[in-house]
Amino acid sequence: MRISEIGEFGLIARLKAICGEPRADVVVGIDDDAAAFRAPEGELEVVTTDALVEGVHFLWDYFSPYQLGWRSMAANLSDMAAMAAEPQFAVVSVALPPSMSVEAVEDMYRGMVDLAGRYGVGIVGGDTTTSPRGMFLSITVIGKAPANRLVRRAGARVGDALFVTGYLGQSHAGLMVLSTPTRFAKQEFPSVVQRHLQPMPRVEEAIFLREHVNLSSMIDVSDGLASEVRHLSRLGGVGAVIVEEAIPVSPEARRVAAAMGHDARDYALGGGEDFELLFTARKEEVERILPRFEERFGLALTAVGEILPAHQGVKLYLADGHLQALPVAGWNHFAGKRHCRRGRGSGS
Amino acid sequence: MRISEIGEFGLIARLKAICGEPRADVVVGIDDDAAAFRAPEGELEVVTTDALVEGVHFLWDYFSPYQLGWRSMAANLSDMAAMAAEPQFAVVSVALPPSMSVEAVEDMYRGMVDLAGRYGVGIVGGDTTTSPRGMFLSITVIGKAPANRLVRRAGARVGDALFVTGYLGQSHAGLMVLSTPTRFAKQEFPSVVQRHLQPMPRVEEAIFLREHVNLSSMIDVSDGLASEVRHLSRLGGVGAVIVEEAIPVSPEARRVAAAMGHDARDYALGGGEDFELLFTARKEEVERILPRFEERFGLALTAVGEILPAHQGVKLYLADGHLQALPVAGWNHFAGKRHCRRGRGSGS
Repeated sequence: MRISEIGEFGLIARLKAICGEPRADVVVGIDDDAAAFRAPEGELEVVTTDALVEGVHFLWDYFSPYQLGWRSMAANLSDMAAMAAEPQFAVVSVALPPSMSVEAVEDMYRGMVDLAGRYGVGIVGGDTTTSPRGMFLSITVIGKAPANRLVRRAGARVGDALFVTGYLGQSHAGLMVLSTPTRFAKQEFPSVVQRHLQPMPRVEEAIFLREHVNLSSMIDVSDGLASEVRHLSRLGGVGAVIVEEAIPVSPEARRVAAAMGHDARDYALGGGEDFELLFTARKEEVERILPRFEERFGLALTAVGEILPAHQGVKLYLADGHLQALPVAGWNHFAGKRHCRRGRGSGS
Repeated sequence: MRISEIGEFGLIARLKAICGEPRADVVVGIDDDAAAFRAPEGELEVVTTDALVEGVHFLWDYFSPYQLGWRSMAANLSDMAAMAAEPQFAVVSVALPPSMSVEAVEDMYRGMVDLAGRYGVGIVGGDTTTSPRGMFLSITVIGKAPANRLVRRAGARVGDALFVTGYLGQSHAGLMVLSTPTRFAKQEFPSVVQRHLQPMPRVEEAIFLREHVNLSSMIDVSDGLASEVRHLSRLGGVGAVIVEEAIPVSPEARRVAAAMGHDARDYALGGGEDFELLFTARKEEVERILPRFEERFGLALTAVGEILPAHQGVKLYLADGHLQALPVAGWNHFAGKRHCRRGRGSGS
């Protein structure tokens, strides 16, 4: 069935059913000019928004509508995690080609609702409109955090260690598998493909860390490790060194990179959308809770470097013992290409 | 200068400067994974989102970037007004064609910031990305209201009067002027053109009304009077009658309709985007504050009908004394056309 057959209000009624009954603290849900909910007493309200554009952030070739809904919600929840905030509500603004099937839109909402529901997050409203060409999806997530527990991008202190959750470069390796079907069988690379299509944001991990460690700064890895380290460094007014050999790259990602003739390190440094957490803290504090963290979440926590004084810049300590400037890697949306200058001596 | 020349981060730095210093209750503004602000003590948090798509909601032929920014912010603030809530913060998600000029994007943000600033609303964050074809803009506004003062769409009581602020059909008349330049000189129709390009949301008016009148239901007129009355009626489980002769249509809009060979009444019933308020209350209560309202805001408040028992349906009382079903008028985005069945006997 095409959306044009049931119209805007028919579609909204179906999506409302998928979103389900609102949580108890929702006073006004879908079906009014705005949604309303009880404000958290004595906490900060946290809000983030993230857009997904067909042909820029995704191609239907790789994503099912369910996966796409999941992934777009994951990107927003990951931003909440990066603040160590607890997500509560979401509003969804979507522009849909009229030729899109109602079933596809419903599946996309199911993907959003299923992931959001794992964290008790309700979709409380949105805007549904048409797009002449290509889909556009923008999600805004609202959450909360105690004022003294919010973790900023700024705040890293000289001597702090840099830690990441999980593996890096997974999502990019997954994209390589999906976009080179002549070379790869998806089912042989389940974890990198899954990380690309249906990433899990590190929401509970972030709250656990906030409760057990004094986090001086945090960001989620959405543009590659190199770009995120530069953000923490710039905003914290500090330098940093990343130890090449310490970067956690999974065996699956290494196999993909090898088959492609790539360096797996570049997937980690410049590949986006991993949605892992990068944070700074005293090394001993993190090491104390490390076994509990890994047991609880089944997820590694790896020290990848250290915060240096600003004048030392942002460096990469190579496996061969040389030190070079950390490559400038990351996605520039408006240049329309990934920048990744690397190799000894070519750093910025 | 093209956006592609300064890149994503260059653009964000410029837009941040336009957004200015954050308000005192903003704890984290632009430049982090999410924004954070103090939650209102003991009040409800209210959130609304609204998208604007190039080629669907607007054409660059009529709007300057500044006007477009203004208009899109107005649509969101109007939704806040419709709840009688006080807007506080906005986040802006935008997908821009890389060929767009930096100056145009800056002007668009100035339009948003200028209107938002009138209500003390700060832009605290957003997402800036690229679009392969056409611009997409989605704004989310967060506000607050005391729990017992929020005004819903549901709640109209039999015997309540239906009131509207200002004139209806202005925006559609403005569109007719702009889209028929061979017939109309813009400067001869300043108020309808202004209402189309740079509408004023009725934020302060709504809060004044909420403080002085027991409002049983409210909605903003974004799809034409007929459609909004049907919403209030359906959600309130009541019927309604609109008195044709009472509908406030400005002399300017009448002149435009006459020149086009249209019935000005249709502009009011089916023309969208007026962003006036439609509400229900006891007639005597509203009449008591009417002079003060009109003096304070320089804006008319007009009784256009009455709430009836549900079994009486939704009617239009014609100037000639006949009663007919209220035309089904309004915009169906997915059918891609305006529905406006009218004329005696053709009502739904």
